[in-house]
Amino acid sequence: MGTAQLSAVPEPKYWHLRTVLLRAIDSEFATGEVIPNERELAARFGVARATLRQALDQLELEGRLVRRRGIGTLVAAPRVGVPVNRGAEGWPGSSREQAWRTVGCGTAGASEQLAGALGIATGEPVHTVRRVRTAQGQPVATESLHVPESALSHLPAIQLTGGPDEGEELAKSVLRRLERLTVDGESRAVELGVAEAAEAALLERPPGTPVLVVTTQYASAGRLAAVAVSTYRADTCRLTFGETGLVEVAPVAAAAARTA
Amino acid sequence: MGTAQLSAVPEPKYWHLRTVLLRAIDSEFATGEVIPNERELAARFGVARATLRQALDQLELEGRLVRRRGIGTLVAAPRVGVPVNRGAEGWPGSSREQAWRTVGCGTAGASEQLAGALGIATGEPVHTVRRVRTAQGQPVATESLHVPESALSHLPAIQLTGGPDEGEELAKSVLRRLERLTVDGESRAVELGVAEAAEAALLERPPGTPVLVVTTQYASAGRLAAVAVSTYRADTCRLTFGETGLVEVAPVAAAAARTA
Repeated sequence: MGTAQLSAVPEPKYWHLRTVLLRAIDSEFATGEVIPNERELAARFGVARATLRQALDQLELEGRLVRRRGIGTLVAAPRVGVPVNRGAEGWPGSSREQAWRTVGCGTAGASEQLAGALGIATGEPVHTVRRVRTAQGQPVATESLHVPESALSHLPAIQLTGGPDEGEELAKSVLRRLERLTVDGESRAVELGVAEAAEAALLERPPGTPVLVVTTQYASAGRLAAVAVSTYRADTCRLTFGETGLVEVAPVAAAAARTA
Repeated sequence: MGTAQLSAVPEPKYWHLRTVLLRAIDSEFATGEVIPNERELAARFGVARATLRQALDQLELEGRLVRRRGIGTLVAAPRVGVPVNRGAEGWPGSSREQAWRTVGCGTAGASEQLAGALGIATGEPVHTVRRVRTAQGQPVATESLHVPESALSHLPAIQLTGGPDEGEELAKSVLRRLERLTVDGESRAVELGVAEAAEAALLERPPGTPVLVVTTQYASAGRLAAVAVSTYRADTCRLTFGETGLVEVAPVAAAAARTA
């Protein structure tokens, strides 16, 4: 059916095994079921433990298998569709804001690079709110929301209750002031990254876990009002964009559409 | 500054090395420069070759290093921002269509799963156009564009020249008929995947290479007119969405915004 002359690609052994394993998982096991241990699998497929482990690592990376300490290796649930837009991303005042929990906040002079990202001068004060997003009781994303004080300075200060936690009080103030801004638009970038130690802890995963890094710029009154950098767990999340109200494509159907 | 009690996460040895290496790369080497070989690096950082290799693998996955056969390991160029929208994704008739090259086309009855993704009956004829997108002379994405014949049947057939390549002729006909459709909207999902053998060959990478899988549904006249499943190289691409004309954030600045 093709018009292309595909050059033959040498298929690594672990990759072949991964494909065979995937077929076995799909046909023999249900979501949440524990698959046989490494010794049994290596014997069944006649491969070395190292090759098997590489194939299992790959399937874990792809979000098809989950390793649970003391239990074994389970068939993972399909990825959760996580809507990414101003509302769902927890822009202050949105109905989905409650999906985000503040875990820290601070104010500091912008580094040269952060200043570049925000379009401000180096050293200008920037508030950074750190939050975690949960879905179905699991942490799915962490976020650093950077807001230059100069983007908020025309707004009245918020009278706070003077609670014991300074970071939490500051976060509340920044979020409430942001809520009064009119957002004119936003632009996003998505790329592959890995969770750094602090992010990994919040996501309850080891450092180095693959994440989808979403950088969102929010514009208000012709300037950048905030930049949010979110890291979504790549093993469990499928980011969805757009609101055309079309048929929701199940992950399995999407996989079929790719290789059909 | 935090309000969270982060649980201490054990940092794997390779992960610590990766962070140290990254700092060394950023301060000592320029883009395209060859870094010392594994033996030298292992000696310099006082680590086992296996740990070093794991850290290098990690940095290659993150798109910070590139291995070239016969040359060595190079510092990778920053990721390329690849706009994702109807025009840039090569929707027929768009100015960016030329960035995509057709590599194959065929027509087949829809499998149950593909039918589900397209909202049609199983067995209905579906045209599948396979394309490759290039940026700066490099392949960056492959795509399977699925179009049910029923979405096009109200459009006049295209008179083709009867060239020698049936697949190419069919692709031309499908793309020209799509060009006449009015697209009402599109919705997208982005998730992490790995390149299957055929995709990997087109991307000039080994099978298993991480890719960003973008599934786009195009709606026309109240129904799904097409579903495109694209796989973008995750090591070299940064997908950009939205057209608010904001400041373009450089990848380095974005990285700083994440950890600042």
